[in-house]
Amino acid sequence: MTLGERRIIEIIQKQLVEMPKMPIPFGDDVAAIDLGNNKLAILKTDMLDAKTDVPKTMTLWQAARKAVVMNISDFAAKGAKPEALLVSLGLPTGLTENDIEEIGRGLNAGAREYDAYIIGGDTGEASDLIISIALFGTAKKTDLMLRGGARPGDIVAVTGPFGNAAAGLRILTENIKTPESTRENLTESVLMPHARLKEGLALSKTRAVTAAIDSSDGLAWSLHEIAKASKVGFIIDKLPTDKETKEFALTNKLDPKDLTLYGGEEYELVLTIKPKSLQKAENAIRNVGSRLLIIGRATKKKQITLNTDKEPCTIKAKGYEHFKTNIKDSKPAT
Amino acid sequence: MTLGERRIIEIIQKQLVEMPKMPIPFGDDVAAIDLGNNKLAILKTDMLDAKTDVPKTMTLWQAARKAVVMNISDFAAKGAKPEALLVSLGLPTGLTENDIEEIGRGLNAGAREYDAYIIGGDTGEASDLIISIALFGTAKKTDLMLRGGARPGDIVAVTGPFGNAAAGLRILTENIKTPESTRENLTESVLMPHARLKEGLALSKTRAVTAAIDSSDGLAWSLHEIAKASKVGFIIDKLPTDKETKEFALTNKLDPKDLTLYGGEEYELVLTIKPKSLQKAENAIRNVGSRLLIIGRATKKKQITLNTDKEPCTIKAKGYEHFKTNIKDSKPAT
Repeated sequence: MTLGERRIIEIIQKQLVEMPKMPIPFGDDVAAIDLGNNKLAILKTDMLDAKTDVPKTMTLWQAARKAVVMNISDFAAKGAKPEALLVSLGLPTGLTENDIEEIGRGLNAGAREYDAYIIGGDTGEASDLIISIALFGTAKKTDLMLRGGARPGDIVAVTGPFGNAAAGLRILTENIKTPESTRENLTESVLMPHARLKEGLALSKTRAVTAAIDSSDGLAWSLHEIAKASKVGFIIDKLPTDKETKEFALTNKLDPKDLTLYGGEEYELVLTIKPKSLQKAENAIRNVGSRLLIIGRATKKKQITLNTDKEPCTIKAKGYEHFKTNIKDSKPAT
Repeated sequence: MTLGERRIIEIIQKQLVEMPKMPIPFGDDVAAIDLGNNKLAILKTDMLDAKTDVPKTMTLWQAARKAVVMNISDFAAKGAKPEALLVSLGLPTGLTENDIEEIGRGLNAGAREYDAYIIGGDTGEASDLIISIALFGTAKKTDLMLRGGARPGDIVAVTGPFGNAAAGLRILTENIKTPESTRENLTESVLMPHARLKEGLALSKTRAVTAAIDSSDGLAWSLHEIAKASKVGFIIDKLPTDKETKEFALTNKLDPKDLTLYGGEEYELVLTIKPKSLQKAENAIRNVGSRLLIIGRATKKKQITLNTDKEPCTIKAKGYEHFKTNIKDSKPAT
């Protein structure tokens, strides 16, 4: 595509009459409608296109499950509870009954992992395999974690280490070598992503979080999105690189920093937290069996700086770029 | 596609754990979630793929508008009020900023015609132009018009005449001739479809309607869907053929019956009505400036019979088939 995704959304948005009193501004991870009594209907739609989103070794079951998980992840980042999904399928010719069954099982598996249900959908013919999900759920208006609430001094934290999906994708699509002990975890993080739903729901109850986003477009991009919406900057003084990413980088003489910051297809939450409520947030996360990694703090100065090396440097607003080479055209392997 | 749409949905559905207490059974025009107090959240998703759903002479503006209208039409058939839409766009390479703007304007026009708003969405690259819509709205549980409530003796009615879209599509894709006076209306019914929303909402308040569906897969198919869900049959003794369809059929020596029954991409409502409440339904429809065409009645015998000729014949369970010839691959004309 000659036009970037960001520019396309900008152009479309300019043509739209805005709904009065939108509870969540256009462009956040999810959209909402006010149901009254502090209750919001939360909506999200995201489309998986096998041409760009499905590496060759991903099964149809995994692709269908992933299409669900990537939508659930946006709910997780906002503290919204997913309840029901609708699925629009675009199917290339030549799929068998077994293929369709596998897609159905993958959709169901993704939904049930997060206690949601597939309640309807539609299907038609398409050139690529397309799985478009519409996710519905609810949230308390006062529990929502938006992108725009970070304040200077807030603590920046993530729900897990980064880099494995970027490394895994390279292993799957470019056949790059890796220490055998790391191979499974790295590729699994691409093939079997998990949404941080219980973490997001637990954090939203604490009211400790001032801004949140999921990291599906990469850590650097997520930080820039929060910075833009909240009108702050960040100093990142601890990079949350996964130890397996470090081994992979060492073996391949790659920069682990790049894999950590500019990867993507990773479904961690990137959060800013009020310093005085940090303990509350950490307790909430611990109660659901996870942990917070603190990586920096928000600043008044609107720059995003990496301060881990001798020389501080700027974290670029570079998002995840689809690995188009070696990504199959339409039908994933079964 | 080797597998039919119906079979695909059947296979998928078999893999799904069903949500307990679904207010609307799987497979009706829309899905619903109970919000309590007789209120339902209504959801629908349907995908427009330019490869099969967009004739060559349709502009991008028209295609985007149509993607919205076809979803609104399902809400109309259930008596549900559309409120907000999310849009997933799959865009082929090579679209210009003007193209995107046109798509945005078409989406907005479709939504605003029915007092709804586009509140979010997502975009990515795809081989065909894909416009997947997720529509949210609400309805009173007791107002809903489902497919399964028709009883023997009920009156069968439609909200307008049929055949023009089938004729128009042939004019657009096969360059078939038609009397000049009919050309614009016939092609407009393909390029600028309208959803019968005010009719559906007005009818739902009367509680006179026992079953309803929109006719986007054709009149014959719609009758078969209601018959199957309600476990009834129909005798159709008056075919609602549009007068322009008759002229077109005459000119081209085509059977107007086929154009009326087995067309599609027509967005009328097909309804069954309690005989004693017919007056109420007719008044409601008149109050919104429209009219009901009575075409037959429901029977205990589970057959669908056309009784307009000397010899009664069976109406086949044949749905609308996409006119694949002459349908452009990805990018509609601008």
